[in-house]
Amino acid sequence: MTINHQIHLVSRPAGEAVADNFHMVRTRLPTTLADGQVLVRHHYMSLDPYMRGRMNDAKSYAAPQPLNEVMQGGTVGEVVDSKSPAFAVGDKVVGMGGWQEYQVVDAGKPGMLRKVSTEHVPLSAYLGAVGMPGVTAWYGLTQIIAPKEGQTVLVSAASGAVGSAVGQLAKVRGARAVGIAGGPQKCAYVVDELGFDACIDYRQHADLKSFSQALKQACPDGIDGVFENVGGLGLDAALQRMNAFGRIALCGMIAGYDGQPIPLQQPQLLLTHRLRLEGFIVSEHMELWPQALTELATLVGTGKLKYRETVAEGLAAAPEAFLGLLKGRNFGKQLVKLV
Amino acid sequence: MTINHQIHLVSRPAGEAVADNFHMVRTRLPTTLADGQVLVRHHYMSLDPYMRGRMNDAKSYAAPQPLNEVMQGGTVGEVVDSKSPAFAVGDKVVGMGGWQEYQVVDAGKPGMLRKVSTEHVPLSAYLGAVGMPGVTAWYGLTQIIAPKEGQTVLVSAASGAVGSAVGQLAKVRGARAVGIAGGPQKCAYVVDELGFDACIDYRQHADLKSFSQALKQACPDGIDGVFENVGGLGLDAALQRMNAFGRIALCGMIAGYDGQPIPLQQPQLLLTHRLRLEGFIVSEHMELWPQALTELATLVGTGKLKYRETVAEGLAAAPEAFLGLLKGRNFGKQLVKLV
Repeated sequence: MTINHQIHLVSRPAGEAVADNFHMVRTRLPTTLADGQVLVRHHYMSLDPYMRGRMNDAKSYAAPQPLNEVMQGGTVGEVVDSKSPAFAVGDKVVGMGGWQEYQVVDAGKPGMLRKVSTEHVPLSAYLGAVGMPGVTAWYGLTQIIAPKEGQTVLVSAASGAVGSAVGQLAKVRGARAVGIAGGPQKCAYVVDELGFDACIDYRQHADLKSFSQALKQACPDGIDGVFENVGGLGLDAALQRMNAFGRIALCGMIAGYDGQPIPLQQPQLLLTHRLRLEGFIVSEHMELWPQALTELATLVGTGKLKYRETVAEGLAAAPEAFLGLLKGRNFGKQLVKLV
Repeated sequence: MTINHQIHLVSRPAGEAVADNFHMVRTRLPTTLADGQVLVRHHYMSLDPYMRGRMNDAKSYAAPQPLNEVMQGGTVGEVVDSKSPAFAVGDKVVGMGGWQEYQVVDAGKPGMLRKVSTEHVPLSAYLGAVGMPGVTAWYGLTQIIAPKEGQTVLVSAASGAVGSAVGQLAKVRGARAVGIAGGPQKCAYVVDELGFDACIDYRQHADLKSFSQALKQACPDGIDGVFENVGGLGLDAALQRMNAFGRIALCGMIAGYDGQPIPLQQPQLLLTHRLRLEGFIVSEHMELWPQALTELATLVGTGKLKYRETVAEGLAAAPEAFLGLLKGRNFGKQLVKLV
């Protein structure tokens, strides 16, 4: 009999999320699996900004995270027991195991578990550049922004799991990539290591005029596409600098998750610049995942798509690591390592 | 020798546009036309909300209206002299003649003048339902919103030249049409005469909660498409009621033309509802005009597309009629009758 630790959501945030919203629970795994079941030991858990939205009990694109149940989320791990012909002990798998050490999975249900190869791609990358964040970047860039060669793509949260992939995928397509990130260290990483053409430190620009001026310098030919992970001042400034017929892939509004929404100051610019703005959730476009994952795995395997990880150690560290992610304390993809 | 009166823009508005921004000028027409020229006597001039935007000296989709020149705008009239083989005296024509009684046109330039038939369609309708406003409605509805049968389309400024056509075109396609208009008289017209399924009087809803509640009642299945002519509170409320994958055709933001822009209060709803918003200018899609005009003329000719006109008499009445239009004092398409 094996002990399994889980982290549950036990209360909803009133404003800012806090550690007390979470609670660790000790459970037992079943002694034997039923036919078709697989026992997965999680090696890494993914922490993602979208989880904050699900902590609220509000109408959104996904059902709220239920109270007093294990926090949902992506996981990678290894099959340690199997009564499914499709999975053998030792297989490396990607799933939605949630914030816990083990998960019993009904392997027969489609989409529950996917076997992956770690020959050219590290296991943890299947939660990042070759996983949901990478496909998110790929979808927004290729299906909404669709930059032409030489056009300028602006990406907020540019050092993060999604943003870093957006800029590199844009460069592969011959576009100019300009990032927005917090602090000189992240900005240097975005330009020097990821190969963006420029990066703006939003902490240096407290008002719209200053931010807009910085964008003008970084984007001398204007902005043709915005991949928006943040919202707020950066988006307001970007709207001022967009070229006619620009595209905005709206992926996240992290700045507004806590408390009040952040208004868009000049919506009339969407009209005067004839912009197209599209909100999207990558899990609603599963038909494109195979195509996206093939490109992403190839680019990671050949060193053309770089990424960075911030790794918290042990399940108990997950809540604080998640709260830090919401405040931008991570650097690249935020993971929790369990094994 | 013929006298021609014109109205010029002589100053730019500081905030609200006022009558003093305009000035009437008396000019003389040339005694003889050059080869290829046509002299058109204007019967009707079109007054449109977009003209307010051009009065500002700001970056926009069109160059600003130059100072001390005739106000630009659509016109219909009759050829009274011609040195062009393409036009004969007596031809009815649509053009961009501006706020003046006559215009000398270089008829050889493409797009300057279009001959029209008044057999089934009244001349003035070529400035409204079978002209730029009608094509604007057609483009936003069919190319951006593209409603499926049974879906709900919300239209602001629903009794206006564009909005009235949007709702009727939606009904022709089997969609549900819900309007927003100012006052009980306009709302009754929208439902009883134009055949919309419901109409909300925005004057009855001073805050977001009240407006949103009214939309919930008028749109029990949610909103699938918004044709936005106004912006502000109505758009904020509509966002709250939109269904997943809804489309917003952004055509006008009349509420923000004077002075400060009106922020969009909850832009995060664009993401949570996975909406697509597109700003457009119908003059940039000329390739679709023939298709649109064919449908619009057929519908008007067969009585299936109704419209109303507010007609000011004489060139001197144009400034006040235009200022009234900006305040919603017109009812349907605002015209100035010159002959």
